[in-house]
Amino acid sequence: MLQVGVNGYGTIGKRVADAVRAQPDMTIAGVTKTSPDFAAEGARTAGYPLYACDEESVDEFHAAGLAVDGTVGDMVDASDVVVDATPGGVGAEYRPLYEARDTPAVFQGAEAPDVAETSFNARANFDDARDADYVRVVSCNTTGLSRLLAPLAETYGIEKVRTTLVRRGGDPTQSDRGPINDILPDPVEVPSHHGPDVQTIFPDLSIDTLGLTVPATLMHLHSVNVTLESTPDSRDVCDLLDAESRLFVVPERSGIGSCGQLREYARDAGRPRGDVWENCVWGESITVEERDFYCFQAIHQEADVVPENVDALRAMFDMADAEESVARTNAALGLER
Amino acid sequence: MLQVGVNGYGTIGKRVADAVRAQPDMTIAGVTKTSPDFAAEGARTAGYPLYACDEESVDEFHAAGLAVDGTVGDMVDASDVVVDATPGGVGAEYRPLYEARDTPAVFQGAEAPDVAETSFNARANFDDARDADYVRVVSCNTTGLSRLLAPLAETYGIEKVRTTLVRRGGDPTQSDRGPINDILPDPVEVPSHHGPDVQTIFPDLSIDTLGLTVPATLMHLHSVNVTLESTPDSRDVCDLLDAESRLFVVPERSGIGSCGQLREYARDAGRPRGDVWENCVWGESITVEERDFYCFQAIHQEADVVPENVDALRAMFDMADAEESVARTNAALGLER
Amino acid sequence: MLQVGVNGYGTIGKRVADAVRAQPDMTIAGVTKTSPDFAAEGARTAGYPLYACDEESVDEFHAAGLAVDGTVGDMVDASDVVVDATPGGVGAEYRPLYEARDTPAVFQGAEAPDVAETSFNARANFDDARDADYVRVVSCNTTGLSRLLAPLAETYGIEKVRTTLVRRGGDPTQSDRGPINDILPDPVEVPSHHGPDVQTIFPDLSIDTLGLTVPATLMHLHSVNVTLESTPDSRDVCDLLDAESRLFVVPERSGIGSCGQLREYARDAGRPRGDVWENCVWGESITVEERDFYCFQAIHQEADVVPENVDALRAMFDMADAEESVARTNAALGLER
Amino acid sequence: MLQVGVNGYGTIGKRVADAVRAQPDMTIAGVTKTSPDFAAEGARTAGYPLYACDEESVDEFHAAGLAVDGTVGDMVDASDVVVDATPGGVGAEYRPLYEARDTPAVFQGAEAPDVAETSFNARANFDDARDADYVRVVSCNTTGLSRLLAPLAETYGIEKVRTTLVRRGGDPTQSDRGPINDILPDPVEVPSHHGPDVQTIFPDLSIDTLGLTVPATLMHLHSVNVTLESTPDSRDVCDLLDAESRLFVVPERSGIGSCGQLREYARDAGRPRGDVWENCVWGESITVEERDFYCFQAIHQEADVVPENVDALRAMFDMADAEESVARTNAALGLER
Ligand SMILES: NC(=O)c1ccc[n+]([C@@H]2O[C@H](COP(=O)([O-])OP(=O)(O)OC[C@H]3O[C@@H](n4cnc5c(N)ncnc54)[C@H](O)[C@@H]3O)[C@@H](O)[C@H]2O)c1
Ligand SMILES: NC(=O)c1ccc[n+]([C@@H]2O[C@H](COP(=O)([O-])OP(=O)(O)OC[C@H]3O[C@@H](n4cnc5c(N)ncnc54)[C@H](O)[C@@H]3O)[C@@H](O)[C@H]2O)c1
Ligand SMILES: NC(=O)c1ccc[n+]([C@@H]2O[C@H](COP(=O)([O-])OP(=O)(O)OC[C@H]3O[C@@H](n4cnc5c(N)ncnc54)[C@H](O)[C@@H]3O)[C@@H](O)[C@H]2O)c1
Ligand SMILES: NC(=O)c1ccc[n+]([C@@H]2O[C@H](COP(=O)([O-])OP(=O)(O)OC[C@H]3O[C@@H](n4cnc5c(N)ncnc54)[C@H](O)[C@@H]3O)[C@@H](O)[C@H]2O)c1
Repeated sequence: MLQVGVNGYGTIGKRVADAVRAQPDMTIAGVTKTSPDFAAEGARTAGYPLYACDEESVDEFHAAGLAVDGTVGDMVDASDVVVDATPGGVGAEYRPLYEARDTPAVFQGAEAPDVAETSFNARANFDDARDADYVRVVSCNTTGLSRLLAPLAETYGIEKVRTTLVRRGGDPTQSDRGPINDILPDPVEVPSHHGPDVQTIFPDLSIDTLGLTVPATLMHLHSVNVTLESTPDSRDVCDLLDAESRLFVVPERSGIGSCGQLREYARDAGRPRGDVWENCVWGESITVEERDFYCFQAIHQEADVVPENVDALRAMFDMADAEESVARTNAALGLER
Repeated sequence: MLQVGVNGYGTIGKRVADAVRAQPDMTIAGVTKTSPDFAAEGARTAGYPLYACDEESVDEFHAAGLAVDGTVGDMVDASDVVVDATPGGVGAEYRPLYEARDTPAVFQGAEAPDVAETSFNARANFDDARDADYVRVVSCNTTGLSRLLAPLAETYGIEKVRTTLVRRGGDPTQSDRGPINDILPDPVEVPSHHGPDVQTIFPDLSIDTLGLTVPATLMHLHSVNVTLESTPDSRDVCDLLDAESRLFVVPERSGIGSCGQLREYARDAGRPRGDVWENCVWGESITVEERDFYCFQAIHQEADVVPENVDALRAMFDMADAEESVARTNAALGLER
Repeated sequence: MLQVGVNGYGTIGKRVADAVRAQPDMTIAGVTKTSPDFAAEGARTAGYPLYACDEESVDEFHAAGLAVDGTVGDMVDASDVVVDATPGGVGAEYRPLYEARDTPAVFQGAEAPDVAETSFNARANFDDARDADYVRVVSCNTTGLSRLLAPLAETYGIEKVRTTLVRRGGDPTQSDRGPINDILPDPVEVPSHHGPDVQTIFPDLSIDTLGLTVPATLMHLHSVNVTLESTPDSRDVCDLLDAESRLFVVPERSGIGSCGQLREYARDAGRPRGDVWENCVWGESITVEERDFYCFQAIHQEADVVPENVDALRAMFDMADAEESVARTNAALGLER
Repeated sequence: MLQVGVNGYGTIGKRVADAVRAQPDMTIAGVTKTSPDFAAEGARTAGYPLYACDEESVDEFHAAGLAVDGTVGDMVDASDVVVDATPGGVGAEYRPLYEARDTPAVFQGAEAPDVAETSFNARANFDDARDADYVRVVSCNTTGLSRLLAPLAETYGIEKVRTTLVRRGGDPTQSDRGPINDILPDPVEVPSHHGPDVQTIFPDLSIDTLGLTVPATLMHLHSVNVTLESTPDSRDVCDLLDAESRLFVVPERSGIGSCGQLREYARDAGRPRGDVWENCVWGESITVEERDFYCFQAIHQEADVVPENVDALRAMFDMADAEESVARTNAALGLER
């Protein structure tokens, strides 16, 4: 059993912890929290060994009646590998600590690519992470694009990608984030930084992205255009995408026409936290006009990178090949339709 | 085992179905759907016998590859009792069908009170529903107020209630509901109809309510004032409320300051659909100034009436007394802290 | 002086009325209202002859103490031409009435194109409306795209347009419209109907559009891609667009990064109702990568069609050529920077 | 002519500047800006002498092609009095500079009360500011409450005020403010700090307030309860409030049911920036039950303090008594119905 520590038990960290625990070949060595709030209590209830982020906060935990098993360093010592899910930039500051204790680590998408040896997406470049000590799982948006582009590139060839990313303003708990009644070009500059991030997975891809932010919290929505190198039939592309295990092609008869309904679908299915780990591609939107492929896809920002973190761990420790790892992760999570 | 049919498998209906199934003494005889959309598929996956709402839609279900076991009438025949969770006003139209088949029924809060023999809240007037054939579980807002007012009335006496109900504009799936960027007096007339609805539970209560609607989907938020007949200490009132099983007094150390965080707390706890069945009363807001009690409470509109529906069934069939029923419902749902 | 009647004094109608009255060569013969609400009072205060939409409502107006000068038919009789700004589809129902009274009319974008002899945009096809009796000013989104595409097509040639329209859910007064916390593919089908509408102005244009709806009321935001037939420098394209009188190229130094700030800019400038009649194209977003032009533009849906209605009137009555009409309209409105 | 300098030409500052300029007995000596953005350009276009906030930024202004007439100190020297509309807390830091130059000043509501000799509301305590050198105009919410409570207190006597303030999350330009989809108790503690702020105007008033924040930008909405010392008829109270020049009792026949429509009403009336300087009290909501008065009022946070700033200046320089000053301010602004 691979002993996994999670540094930063926030939106991503707690989901990764639960997903790791659900696997047959790995388990949670501990998780860190900065303060003894409701999420710390949740970690305790979930039965995870709990560590404070530093000595000062240990006292805070004790004052709140929450026992901790030490601080970050202790957790790293107890772990074979760390999943770092601290806020963007903090992961890079932690890397020396991980190195000093000879512990490999997985970082998240808000870190700069050079925090790690390679950026990672299970569908697109699993093997690049094999035996690597430091791996970065790309952001929710880049993960979503990578899963969609990989089969298109393999089957039809891609000449150029042009995509508008309509991003949620914040996660549901982030009540201090806006905008309230606005649509923001974000960034105003075109093309946005998202394209280069996709190129950490597909180095030779020609891609231009435009980013917007809107007052919503449920999911990102991508308006995708891909100029292909061939002219497939819309229906064939639909079948191709439908065959991908982490793409959910939303059928017309489902009556699902909004992000709210997608999340409800996941809640009805009993998914933990109502999470949608897959890209949701509206079947009716999949269109090919000459060589131009179009679609809308919704990405649950809190969830889609979660199975990718699990797969990254298997790649780093050579515990399975891509196909086997993805199948094992999916089965353990119940990511099937 | 009490055989329960659910007519109207929507936001409330599907939650009631799951809650009924979780009980040791009742089970689901079937649920009805008007069209074969994702929720119908969800009902099938959940293993509920599925009925169409009429003959015409049967064909639609077959065309969509979803087998149905008949129509509403067939489901009523298979049931000892029906929980009617159709949209407001539709329940009243169904009552003759239930009567014709000699089947008792529970209605929801958007029906007029006279749809049933009594309105119901488990904490406040369980016994009124004993042996009744037609019972109406009051609305999410009235349920929330009843649970809070019952212990205050019993312990301190209530002179007058004045409450502002800041209501969510729609549920998360209702993307056609607004407002987008507005605060609406709703209704503009003061006092609002919510007070008289509370009086269906507490006939002699003096209560004035004011209703507002805002652009949010997660929970309602009540700004409560109760002039008591005595002058208790704030801390004692806090303890009184904390002892109620369906009131969650949110502790300061939890760091929970928003509806988003309350729902996250429920998600972290593994609650189905992230549901919060309890009123959430912020501990820091509980204040008594002379005889004026104040607090803020958040009400998860999709969820708080769910355990009440279960208890109403037990009252109607005399399966337990109030205390025993509430304890049994809570235990089956995991409604404990 | 051209006598102009406005049928449907709503969001668009009242703005067109004010714009017409500001012109040196036309005036308002009257406006119609369906009920004596605050907007009717506003029309009276503004000094416009007020007409009820039918006989029944005349009494309502009198009861409210608002005198009316007759009904729609009377207003048409008093007018040389009618601007029909009734809700989509209602205009078509009115066309027989206008015809019966031999009165030309301008319709709005929600009508089907065949309501009129030609669709109209002042920048792109002014001459098509010359001497026409029935003209349709295209929708806010199509107007915005037409103004941007016309100079690009003339100067660089257009191979293909691909545009994502991120649309506001409703106008600020439409509190019954959603979504509240969602991003909707709208329509789900790709390409959307917006492209064919642009082709009513540019019949030979190759254009694919995708439509989304988000919880905002201030402006639409377009994420535009145009594959050109040549490879101009970004800076030259910026200058080209900047020279267009109804394109406002938002300069970087302005610090304007949101729709809210664009509307504030208009309010600070003393624009009536804080209206932004021009497309707002962010200068920093104007980019050419090989032959791919990109930009973000914001469109004030309540306002951009207003000057176009004025120009359509001049075209129909041959009161000026395109250049002269646009200049006259702009000068009268203060549409200059 | 009183020479007025405005330090901090933001949301409040620019409106106060325009309002001052509209008066017959005062004029603008200059305004300050921290950076040469669109608002600075607006100040220049409006013809106001423009000052930078410090030496460093002077260069920034020059680089942007905007001439400035000096820095804050220079503006103070050119002024008889300063209206300080800098962000909360900054005003207090500026007070020594104003004192050093022997220049009286008006501060805004986010400053602590002790920044000034008295807090101010034109309707309630005009005379307290007579001949004072430092005066603080209370916040938008306190201004709104003061205008409503003054006539009630004078005419009926007030036993106790209980009010829920449903506050907008941010102004329309503040795209970095949330919440997006939440309702926040803000502060969670009850009663909130708003009550004591009202007591800076009515020292002996018994008042408990509760504060909430919601995802809207247009106006605050107050749910008001006042226990009176007598039992007037609802209609009489309605007439009493209607007679107040800065209370707009929204009539039922207007059809105005939302903040969006209130702002539209102001836009239709040609108000600068669509500003609503008055409290908007819904007529249908004005109710008296025994001694309990209730109503809903909407407060345009960007605008209601503007006429109060003008009146504060007149009080400080003894230029008129309360009645005369308010009449003069209202007439100059067009604040009449
Ligand atoms: N939320 C998303 O939508 C999303 C999606 C994909 C990737 N990510 C990435 O995941 C990472 C984490 O984001 P998140 O949304 O989970 O953030 P979060 O704020 O929800 O969680 C971060 C956690 O790290 C903790 N933390 C902060 N400083 C720390 C320190 N010095 N030591 C230890 N713990 C510390 C915080 O207390 C918190 O629990 C970021 O790189 C982010 O870009 C986020
Ligand atoms: N959603 C809430 O916040 C909430 C809270 C408390 C109580 N309620 C009450 O619960 C009831 C149901 O509300 P909801 O929110 O679940 O609505 P919903 O629209 O989510 O569900 C209603 C269901 O009834 C079905 N239905 C419609 N017409 C029908 C018919 N003729 N025959 C059979 N089924 C039919 C619909 O298809 C849908 O599945 C209402 O009385 C409502 O006031 C709702
Ligand atoms: N609002 C926008 O964003 C926008 C932008 C561009 C074009 N348009 C188009 O302008 C037209 C009007 O839209 P709007 O937004 O101004 O709508 P609106 O609802 O604000 O105004 C329509 C007006 O017509 C009146 N009306 C309704 N039925 C009538 C009848 N039978 N006879 C006479 N008057 C009647 C209504 O009372 C209202 O005053 C539509 O075609 C719309 O598509 C709207
Ligand atoms: N916006 C409202 O709703 C509202 C309502 C009533 C009262 N107020 C009060 O008015 C005051 C100003 O608020 P606002 O909303 O206008 O804020 P704002 O941010 O819109 O404007 C503040 C202005 O001050 C400038 N500024 C910042 N630091 C400065 C400095 N050191 N020197 C000179 N100028 C500086 C800013 O550039 C900006 O132009 C606050 O006290 C606020 O509480 C605001």
